[in-house]
Amino acid sequence: MDIPKLVHDLACRARAASERCAELTTAQKNAWLKGAAKRLESARESIFEANQQDLAEAREKKIEAPLLERLELTKDKWKDMLAGLADVAALDDPVGRIEESQLRPNGLEVARMRIPLGVIGIIYESRPNVTVDAAALCIKAGNAVILRGGSEALHSNLALALELRAAAQESDVPEDAICIVPTPERSAIDALLHESGNVDLIIPRGGPGLIQRVTESSRIPVIKHDAGICHIYVDENADTEMATRIVADSKLRQMSVCNGLETLLIHRAAAESSLSKILAKLHEEGVEIRGDAATRGIFADAQPASEADWATEYLGPILSVRVVEGIDEAIEHVRRYGSDHTEVIVTRNPERAQEWLRRVNSSTVGVNCSTAFADGYRLGLGAEIGISTSKLHAYGPMGLEGLTARKFVLRGDGQLRE
Amino acid sequence: MDIPKLVHDLACRARAASERCAELTTAQKNAWLKGAAKRLESARESIFEANQQDLAEAREKKIEAPLLERLELTKDKWKDMLAGLADVAALDDPVGRIEESQLRPNGLEVARMRIPLGVIGIIYESRPNVTVDAAALCIKAGNAVILRGGSEALHSNLALALELRAAAQESDVPEDAICIVPTPERSAIDALLHESGNVDLIIPRGGPGLIQRVTESSRIPVIKHDAGICHIYVDENADTEMATRIVADSKLRQMSVCNGLETLLIHRAAAESSLSKILAKLHEEGVEIRGDAATRGIFADAQPASEADWATEYLGPILSVRVVEGIDEAIEHVRRYGSDHTEVIVTRNPERAQEWLRRVNSSTVGVNCSTAFADGYRLGLGAEIGISTSKLHAYGPMGLEGLTARKFVLRGDGQLRE
Repeated sequence: MDIPKLVHDLACRARAASERCAELTTAQKNAWLKGAAKRLESARESIFEANQQDLAEAREKKIEAPLLERLELTKDKWKDMLAGLADVAALDDPVGRIEESQLRPNGLEVARMRIPLGVIGIIYESRPNVTVDAAALCIKAGNAVILRGGSEALHSNLALALELRAAAQESDVPEDAICIVPTPERSAIDALLHESGNVDLIIPRGGPGLIQRVTESSRIPVIKHDAGICHIYVDENADTEMATRIVADSKLRQMSVCNGLETLLIHRAAAESSLSKILAKLHEEGVEIRGDAATRGIFADAQPASEADWATEYLGPILSVRVVEGIDEAIEHVRRYGSDHTEVIVTRNPERAQEWLRRVNSSTVGVNCSTAFADGYRLGLGAEIGISTSKLHAYGPMGLEGLTARKFVLRGDGQLRE
Repeated sequence: MDIPKLVHDLACRARAASERCAELTTAQKNAWLKGAAKRLESARESIFEANQQDLAEAREKKIEAPLLERLELTKDKWKDMLAGLADVAALDDPVGRIEESQLRPNGLEVARMRIPLGVIGIIYESRPNVTVDAAALCIKAGNAVILRGGSEALHSNLALALELRAAAQESDVPEDAICIVPTPERSAIDALLHESGNVDLIIPRGGPGLIQRVTESSRIPVIKHDAGICHIYVDENADTEMATRIVADSKLRQMSVCNGLETLLIHRAAAESSLSKILAKLHEEGVEIRGDAATRGIFADAQPASEADWATEYLGPILSVRVVEGIDEAIEHVRRYGSDHTEVIVTRNPERAQEWLRRVNSSTVGVNCSTAFADGYRLGLGAEIGISTSKLHAYGPMGLEGLTARKFVLRGDGQLRE
């Protein structure tokens, strides 16, 4: 099989489809979303069978438990996936939206209009539900999509894509608006990353290895959805009860997600009065505490934190803790070790709060709230294709708007520049 | 000289400076802009001497006339450059601006705040005035800048940067916020393009060779300011007088700029009634007309247009002309040969106008106006770092806002996600 040729043909077909996608009306796109939900529902059995085949092969290859968990299409995930299609249908269509209209002194009307990006390549790991979620968002924003999921999920992804494409055939969405790379060969990824004439944006979703590989090889712009080493800084004037609840929610709600808390920074004065209380709750729940010397002096159950701890995204029941002299030291720590994801201050002092919001330039910065709000749904975007940790184009939770661009639209009655 | 090390050191210093730049107040940045204008004015003689040295060396190397013209710092350019500093000082500071604030149902306030991008690398050709223009815009948007101008302008650029840095020393702007690559070695460009840990964005400004080389080698996101193959489509119902004036303004005002007209498309009906008139004016002014068969049938002075003509940015006194059957064929031509820069329709039909604005996704699309309005100043951006022809991050004329990103800002009073 000539993989570069196969991928090139796929990319050319997606490019051609993207021109038609850009002109679809909202009703046409929503009709596809609704049709896709119906087709998936009626093909449910064959899709679950394909998923079982992937799971069986993965177990044979002794693939580790968390990956198997992500690979499995459970009834709950299925329900969420179908509900997701309905949710995306209900979202406002960004395409064609006029923004920032103004009349220039010469009578020329200048506005910005949202347009699709074109062809978007999504490279992801084992979760088959991403196939449906990502396709829905890309199409609703008027783009064509090329999906390249993990090789271990290939049967599931092909079965899902078959229905998404069949729904397209029954609607005005071109079938090639949803393309799936039909081979588990890793060289297909490199081929895709070199299709700069046909693909406008690459979004990798997965672990640091995938992200790094994609970023280094891509000839196409990449929006990274990188690690989340999230911090909370508890200020000297913080309400202990509030700090305890916010730290607990940020760490315990769900350990494996990128917006979970990884490092607690606390003002020396607050540490003396409140740190034991804040950490006791976590320790009870089985979280291992790794602290600097000052933390260990206050909380005897803490293990020593190494330099590497500050730069680690645990995604599990470990929390690193450091006592700082004030907001400057906290900000310095965040800049040095953070990953530009989410940082929260807990304080009663409004000036300190404002200073934090102004000076910390992570993609989400907060005052007196859980880090777990760094999520497109919770922030009112309606949906989320991922959380960007690089500043270009999109930064932070990224929804439909992040899948579009803006052109300048001029309306005149004969204006000349001369 | 160890070029990669030299460039790496420079990039590290720019990165460190960028953290301070992000926290500068508007007054601090404006004080630097004003101070820089003063320093430049008092160093005027030595800067012109340096420019004369560059010009003498360029003449010795038999460098062609248009490049010499761009290299020369004339009195007019000098005046514009200094006026530019005052203009940028007068622009609103985007940094810290709150946009799209909303209250979520749980009482959490969610807003977006503009922040600087960090470190911006500008790679440009021979115009020394870009050194000052680009530095002013980057610093006003809270960024540090690394400047890499053409080797033939090195003395001029070093002399200019010396004053910009001296003005920084006299203000709160860190000196290393303005870095200049102090060597003509081309390998310095490759070294810069690999500083992905320290440089956030690369903006190349120059010919297609430079753009292609930068895009292909960069490990850092690039915003391309590519060719402008701009089109005007004259519809069947167009006002002949208006079409004639708009075509003339778009082609004749300034031939060497990227927003100049390169291809005229005209509806068959309009061609029969108006094409001779439209082209006569241009022909009188010395513009060579290259047309398809239908054009040549109407306008006898036209030369035959080849396939290559449709894809050529002339930047000079040549215009390609094609007669089309209607708006569909015109749009198809623009999509096939255009460069996503600027396309204008001349029509009396408001539905046809709307169709053009909606379906053509170039960065600037217009109705009944000159293509020459595709310019940051004319569109109300206040200034322009370039015109992006790629959709990611910025599309079309790019001003201060394009040099910033937006973070999410959350203000709560103890909200948990649980």
